[in-house]
Amino acid sequence: MDMRLPQQDLSARYAQVRGHTLALAEPLSDEDCGAQSMPDASPIKWHLAHTTWFFETFILERLEADFKPFHPAFRILFNSYYNGVGEKHPRPQRGLLTRPSMNEVRAYRADVDARIARLLADAPSTELAMLITLGMHHEQQHQELMLTDVKHLLAQSILRPAYMDVPLARAASAAPLAWLAFEGGLTDIGHDGAGFSFDNELPRHKQYVAPFELASRLVTNGEYLGFINAGGYANAALWLAEGWDWARTQNLRAPIYWFQDDKGAWQEFTLHGPQPLDLNRPLTHISLFEADAYAHWAGARLPTEAEWEYAAARAPVETGSLHPAGAAGEGLQQMFGRCWQWTSSSYAPYPGFAAAEGAIGEYNGKFMVNQYVLRGSSCATPDGHARHSYRNFFPAGARWQFTGLRLAR
Amino acid sequence: MDMRLPQQDLSARYAQVRGHTLALAEPLSDEDCGAQSMPDASPIKWHLAHTTWFFETFILERLEADFKPFHPAFRILFNSYYNGVGEKHPRPQRGLLTRPSMNEVRAYRADVDARIARLLADAPSTELAMLITLGMHHEQQHQELMLTDVKHLLAQSILRPAYMDVPLARAASAAPLAWLAFEGGLTDIGHDGAGFSFDNELPRHKQYVAPFELASRLVTNGEYLGFINAGGYANAALWLAEGWDWARTQNLRAPIYWFQDDKGAWQEFTLHGPQPLDLNRPLTHISLFEADAYAHWAGARLPTEAEWEYAAARAPVETGSLHPAGAAGEGLQQMFGRCWQWTSSSYAPYPGFAAAEGAIGEYNGKFMVNQYVLRGSSCATPDGHARHSYRNFFPAGARWQFTGLRLAR
Amino acid sequence: MDMRLPQQDLSARYAQVRGHTLALAEPLSDEDCGAQSMPDASPIKWHLAHTTWFFETFILERLEADFKPFHPAFRILFNSYYNGVGEKHPRPQRGLLTRPSMNEVRAYRADVDARIARLLADAPSTELAMLITLGMHHEQQHQELMLTDVKHLLAQSILRPAYMDVPLARAASAAPLAWLAFEGGLTDIGHDGAGFSFDNELPRHKQYVAPFELASRLVTNGEYLGFINAGGYANAALWLAEGWDWARTQNLRAPIYWFQDDKGAWQEFTLHGPQPLDLNRPLTHISLFEADAYAHWAGARLPTEAEWEYAAARAPVETGSLHPAGAAGEGLQQMFGRCWQWTSSSYAPYPGFAAAEGAIGEYNGKFMVNQYVLRGSSCATPDGHARHSYRNFFPAGARWQFTGLRLAR
Amino acid sequence: MDMRLPQQDLSARYAQVRGHTLALAEPLSDEDCGAQSMPDASPIKWHLAHTTWFFETFILERLEADFKPFHPAFRILFNSYYNGVGEKHPRPQRGLLTRPSMNEVRAYRADVDARIARLLADAPSTELAMLITLGMHHEQQHQELMLTDVKHLLAQSILRPAYMDVPLARAASAAPLAWLAFEGGLTDIGHDGAGFSFDNELPRHKQYVAPFELASRLVTNGEYLGFINAGGYANAALWLAEGWDWARTQNLRAPIYWFQDDKGAWQEFTLHGPQPLDLNRPLTHISLFEADAYAHWAGARLPTEAEWEYAAARAPVETGSLHPAGAAGEGLQQMFGRCWQWTSSSYAPYPGFAAAEGAIGEYNGKFMVNQYVLRGSSCATPDGHARHSYRNFFPAGARWQFTGLRLAR
Repeated sequence: MDMRLPQQDLSARYAQVRGHTLALAEPLSDEDCGAQSMPDASPIKWHLAHTTWFFETFILERLEADFKPFHPAFRILFNSYYNGVGEKHPRPQRGLLTRPSMNEVRAYRADVDARIARLLADAPSTELAMLITLGMHHEQQHQELMLTDVKHLLAQSILRPAYMDVPLARAASAAPLAWLAFEGGLTDIGHDGAGFSFDNELPRHKQYVAPFELASRLVTNGEYLGFINAGGYANAALWLAEGWDWARTQNLRAPIYWFQDDKGAWQEFTLHGPQPLDLNRPLTHISLFEADAYAHWAGARLPTEAEWEYAAARAPVETGSLHPAGAAGEGLQQMFGRCWQWTSSSYAPYPGFAAAEGAIGEYNGKFMVNQYVLRGSSCATPDGHARHSYRNFFPAGARWQFTGLRLAR
Repeated sequence: MDMRLPQQDLSARYAQVRGHTLALAEPLSDEDCGAQSMPDASPIKWHLAHTTWFFETFILERLEADFKPFHPAFRILFNSYYNGVGEKHPRPQRGLLTRPSMNEVRAYRADVDARIARLLADAPSTELAMLITLGMHHEQQHQELMLTDVKHLLAQSILRPAYMDVPLARAASAAPLAWLAFEGGLTDIGHDGAGFSFDNELPRHKQYVAPFELASRLVTNGEYLGFINAGGYANAALWLAEGWDWARTQNLRAPIYWFQDDKGAWQEFTLHGPQPLDLNRPLTHISLFEADAYAHWAGARLPTEAEWEYAAARAPVETGSLHPAGAAGEGLQQMFGRCWQWTSSSYAPYPGFAAAEGAIGEYNGKFMVNQYVLRGSSCATPDGHARHSYRNFFPAGARWQFTGLRLAR
Repeated sequence: MDMRLPQQDLSARYAQVRGHTLALAEPLSDEDCGAQSMPDASPIKWHLAHTTWFFETFILERLEADFKPFHPAFRILFNSYYNGVGEKHPRPQRGLLTRPSMNEVRAYRADVDARIARLLADAPSTELAMLITLGMHHEQQHQELMLTDVKHLLAQSILRPAYMDVPLARAASAAPLAWLAFEGGLTDIGHDGAGFSFDNELPRHKQYVAPFELASRLVTNGEYLGFINAGGYANAALWLAEGWDWARTQNLRAPIYWFQDDKGAWQEFTLHGPQPLDLNRPLTHISLFEADAYAHWAGARLPTEAEWEYAAARAPVETGSLHPAGAAGEGLQQMFGRCWQWTSSSYAPYPGFAAAEGAIGEYNGKFMVNQYVLRGSSCATPDGHARHSYRNFFPAGARWQFTGLRLAR
Repeated sequence: MDMRLPQQDLSARYAQVRGHTLALAEPLSDEDCGAQSMPDASPIKWHLAHTTWFFETFILERLEADFKPFHPAFRILFNSYYNGVGEKHPRPQRGLLTRPSMNEVRAYRADVDARIARLLADAPSTELAMLITLGMHHEQQHQELMLTDVKHLLAQSILRPAYMDVPLARAASAAPLAWLAFEGGLTDIGHDGAGFSFDNELPRHKQYVAPFELASRLVTNGEYLGFINAGGYANAALWLAEGWDWARTQNLRAPIYWFQDDKGAWQEFTLHGPQPLDLNRPLTHISLFEADAYAHWAGARLPTEAEWEYAAARAPVETGSLHPAGAAGEGLQQMFGRCWQWTSSSYAPYPGFAAAEGAIGEYNGKFMVNQYVLRGSSCATPDGHARHSYRNFFPAGARWQFTGLRLAR
């Protein structure tokens, strides 16, 4: 990690990130913030507290003189998965934490923020700067999870409430899909050392990539509707065996937030409430199983994460994206800011990967089994959190994240 | 049902019952009121809304001119189990109902109360009086459930918060256990027709009761600790086969709210928070399986519900109880107001039982399988809700109710 | 138990019962005898060995000088549920017992039979006679289970093999259903002391039975088809709440062995293979839930076990039945020998019931929870095993026994 | 696939492979051959029939004039997972197939073998030769599964029967572990085109392999006992998160077939019956989770499949192994014939992978998710079935295969 930010910038950036988290909870009542819709999701209140716990545990407890915990029980209640820190509250029961209240959690945030500010008042050590930076990136990950988790919660209600009052803009049209050819070869993969990265993006290493083609844009809702109408969910030949069982058992027929109204018209539940399905928008909220079946049907395949990263680093990408270059339609579009793109790569350590010492080393490495890498970023990813080498990862059946599909062949 | 209350009494009684429900929620935050600790329990907010839904659905919808529902979705959201009324929100997901908010539910209560008051302003018909009375008794049942459900919720937290700030009084001593003999014979069982009863207490009918003895008081915590210390939870010979599997699978060793502190001393979680186990108080929160195993160990058995009712109707019962008569120690003590007493009787229709027509007939009859009858009443039962013929019922493994044990032989 | 049989009769009867068990396995291959189709059922080989284990454990081990077990591991492998005897092989894994082989089990049977014969060579003590008699009745219970379990096993196969080659006789017609009135009153229930009974039929005791009517015959397949065609499986109002969930979860639409052929005609799988559904035969293989829903639909109810026993002891019963008396059509028909008849009575101890000392006391008492009593006997019940006071019992969802329905009102 | 075998060799090879399958069933009774110990395993009889079904379905049905199936129901009963062929018997219920009998399955084998022989009598087409060869390799895979499945079945019995009467040879000693260094670089991975391979080994393609070291031999039982004695199963820091949950949930403390006798001495259940644990033999029957935790503890890691294949193709390997070269101790030992070696590589398609058309294309590709590649071969792998490019694969929790561990770093 390269810590190039001067001190005042770190304080300001810390305040900005922390403030944004609170702002995300603004449209919600305290009651909304307490519920947990499934074991994979967490209550908003828990996210607010856990991100604070992270700073308290990994920074204040290490570096603050005369450290005393804000509340001893919070060490257990808001530990997500760090066995090295001790006992944990069971994940599926986070929705039962009616105590502490939202107000107490807000006070917890304020207290930790004040103490972090005191630490940052003097020139911070490299270790402190590194840990603060890690904590901010950790919190940004939770900012995205807050949106996916609250969307899943609101979708359970027959009231179908909107998180945001503003209506969702409709896409005028989808660009025609072009196949962009890449010649590949021996290439360097992984974070290049400038700016922050997580440990799982390191070390940068060589990988051989065979020639391949990548779709210029994401698969759209309209294209996926074609798959559905062609009987895609009823044709075993298109699916991975485990995906077929997964879809059969749950009797699935569409992406998680799609539903048909009384007249059979397709609707999609969004953070803006239910909306007529926009055929031109990128398909989102699909599992890897669905992504793979669609690609099979379309005569294509999922890219590997190396192909994706190789292409992202070389091709002109559309205006408005991470690294603007070239005119829309001539290059790769929708690489960032729309939805995470499933790859066929299982989440595994890069050659030479080493986790950090102690509990903080549990951040990434211990999840490197039975998960698949997603690349890019989504509409819910906070500004400044995306990069070419970023490795998001979820199990093959996860659908509540903003997950979509770019084809390769 | 005998509806002898004059009109103004009915209005006053309605207001009293409805007000008490709200009062029970007073010590709790809105966040506390939204959580559901297990599928068998419901959030406080749901209880507040469902009891209101009952009046809206079974009274306003039938009898109000120009009836319009307060909110159309509430018909689904707050239907507990009445198939005749239509769709229902799935029971295990009641904790996800962050909408409507507690304030909206309070408004729902006020609105329905005002409309009921208008109906009661004129001389109520017999049908209206009957339905109001049924609704009040229904609400009283939920008042008890609110206390058992919030106790279960608070017990999940490592903070072990108290529902009530006042400390729990300790019992000075337990009266010596005496065996009271009853000669039995052909007797009448069931509600005698004076005042309200549920349909499951009817019709009053003949039953033959063989001579039996009943314990003068409930089993105490101290006596049950003797069973535990004698290895009761490890001795298959004492248990019903299904009870043994039930206890083994969950690795049970004590009643649900008992736990040992760091020094091994027994504590009990109560609505007043954790308390040192009071050996003189009546044992509570046990399943029928545990009740039966203890009785087996003690060389006794559970009473039948006919024995219990026969005895309650004849024996002098302690001062402070439902029907004061005789001096403490000379008669049956703790029949009411302490804890529900498991009987060996499965919950079945009385000869000639007939459920009411329509959805309201789903109140009781459809649960008459694989449940066991409890008699008496508990510390959580509202005033005026107990009677000799009352039939409470729960599955054999239920422990979160205020359930205890009186021995017979 | 009244042990009136002289010694030679006991030996002959023992040989007859034991021989019949082997005869039941005759139509089956060794491979057929090893499989277990569900946890509730057992392999034929296991039945052959367990009934032998019963004699070895409860007779030879107690009464044989110099007792040595046939094989030490059999004590564990073939113990069904007697905790007092020690460890048990897990019930759901009985189908994995490929060792010992059928031939070894046959040798086990022969060895125990020879040793029992030696014990019986001298005048048997009352204890021995009692235990032999108990063992024979135990074995007869397993004879019926062998038929129900093999039927369930064969029904799993798409080959639908027949257990018996002979075709199933078709019923010419069903007698018209008559309602027979009984005046009831205070009556004696339970075994009257003549001949053998299980402990659960004792003690004989008084019970008050209100006036009732009983159907002269069992419900037929044709009548139940009427319930199905009237939408019985889709109408929640007819079902017990737990029964409705039970049927919905499994998506049930008919009794367990009914199916429709390619043209929609109803067929029934029987021990004679698949047969066109015989509308005149008594309905069988239904759960208590289905029995109760049908009775509800038909405007009737299930009898209590006391009603059934009272009627059986008083009414003339059809020719060919247990106690022939009166002409068919004038009295109760099909009380015995067709199918077990669900009652609304949960399986509970009679007043004064006491289980035997030691492991043999686990025979009945420990199952007295969450089970319902069936009366009569079935086509699979061995000769000489039925009696008026016999209490069969199964959980409310059991369907693989020969269970049917006689209405009451 | 290169089909270089002349016709007579193909016939002879077919007969040899088919005969070996039958020979593996020789030590077992028909009863042994019918049982299924878990859903992942299959009965021996099913293996015998399914491998025959493969030849009947993919060869006779395509190429035989006037094809008629041996038995129409076998098409369903013995289809493993080919959706393209139609309906399938549910996998977890293969143990209920008491019909057809073993003798009928033997007749099925003989019939199909005779018909295949007739097809091979004339000069076989390339298609026929390819399909016969594929069928033989398929059958060899099932030969190994027969041994793993019967081992698992016999291990369930408290009789702990041996599959083979001959005693297991004990290993005199384990060679010292040496680290062999490989320089890696851009290399070719995948089958080189000579002889048979499965489609998943193709196409041969370029991959970059960073410098690495590989252990000269497999991890031994003694070394793994060190991990156990050091508390390996109780230390969360060593485990993948999912592996830790997997081990906790099942309360695991050792490899699947290890157990401690009455005196605490470690034993291992083998195909030769229970044996004192041989500390010098290669550890086997571990999951990927256990392999990964051990490697973590030992300061090493699992190899990737590319590393394994690169090393196998270059290093001298021990005498007695697939490609004898060099003296023992100087090169890679135990690459083949001992146990399958877990790699960290998830099972994924090689670049350019294309499954065959039709049902036969379901052979491999559809399993390429949530499985991990194993390399080498085991003591149960038939002669002639191992090769450098072979990709075996199982889920991370599988333990009943002959799976072991070679460390990398």
